[in-house]
Amino acid sequence: MAKQGILIVLSGPSGAGKGTICQELLRSYPELNYSISATTRAPREGEQNGVNYWFTSHEEFQKLIKNDQLLEWAEVYGNFYGTPCHQIAALLNCGKDVVLEIDTQGATQIKKKFPQGVCIYIAPPSLDELAKRIHKRGTDSLENIKTRLSSANVELKYVYNYDYVVVNDEVPSATKKIAAIIIAEKCQVVRNISIIESILSNEKIKI
Amino acid sequence: MAKQGILIVLSGPSGAGKGTICQELLRSYPELNYSISATTRAPREGEQNGVNYWFTSHEEFQKLIKNDQLLEWAEVYGNFYGTPCHQIAALLNCGKDVVLEIDTQGATQIKKKFPQGVCIYIAPPSLDELAKRIHKRGTDSLENIKTRLSSANVELKYVYNYDYVVVNDEVPSATKKIAAIIIAEKCQVVRNISIIESILSNEKIKI
Repeated sequence: MAKQGILIVLSGPSGAGKGTICQELLRSYPELNYSISATTRAPREGEQNGVNYWFTSHEEFQKLIKNDQLLEWAEVYGNFYGTPCHQIAALLNCGKDVVLEIDTQGATQIKKKFPQGVCIYIAPPSLDELAKRIHKRGTDSLENIKTRLSSANVELKYVYNYDYVVVNDEVPSATKKIAAIIIAEKCQVVRNISIIESILSNEKIKI
Repeated sequence: MAKQGILIVLSGPSGAGKGTICQELLRSYPELNYSISATTRAPREGEQNGVNYWFTSHEEFQKLIKNDQLLEWAEVYGNFYGTPCHQIAALLNCGKDVVLEIDTQGATQIKKKFPQGVCIYIAPPSLDELAKRIHKRGTDSLENIKTRLSSANVELKYVYNYDYVVVNDEVPSATKKIAAIIIAEKCQVVRNISIIESILSNEKIKI
């Protein structure tokens, strides 16, 4: 049986840069597999169905929930986001590592359902910096920006439910830290029982 | 107050290569601080007092134990080994990371006294490979080699008390894994409470 893969959950408040870091991580470490979320929100410019998200209707999304085909789901600012579970389970069982980029509500659900998942909180260097980034992105309506910023104070407190926190000062440095976290997790004793048993199952040393 | 440093404990059975890995780690990451152990064993060729070990007499060692000046100590193959605690505490309080290279008895004591210490087990790829390495090193008497090898089967089972296991197939690769473990540990939420609080203590975002 192949060694089980690791589920890596990248999360944090809107504007902290989790999307950019996720892209950089997948570019630098092509052996990682990205789990594409399903969403009912409208595609942003340049976003493709089946690449950035599975864009679905509200009706289709409700069907996924009803048939228990989502690992987690959440309603964020009036839109639904969720993680289809079948593909993830298949990849993990083949020993492949899977990266998820989700909001803080979703990450909390995953940690409860899969405590062996590695939850990494991408934090902004400061709340002021977060505000600047959301304004600069310019992809949200003024109304959306206001909603996102007012949630940020609350969302930052979710960090205590996570395993790791990576402050996104600079994308390359934050990405390297996440890569280090993945390597370290693969070395945890609890994830290496089969390797240890194989070393121990050798015949006793002849002297 | 400076962020607390991390105590990194490299350990494993004799011949697994923890000494070589420790040297390579300190060479590649000079910001790490090596904690020099005290021992009553005779120096091997090329070993220097105050560099590789503090070579002490049995009488001096007993005094260190009596005055509670050792973080851990153990008798291994008739010799005493111990970790002087004063310097380590001072470095950790200044935010400096400290690397210890100790035997499995010592690591178990450290884990009990300092659960926040990071215990890494350096494992050989197989028991046969371990036997070859101890023979090849050629620094031990035949009697010592026999004692070391007969202990290895038992020592390998201590791995379950550790946080991480790194199989020493190749020194550079094993060293990089340990460096990744240190980076990851520094990102753990529990080690970053002060940074998180400083982000959260900013004034609320003005919208």
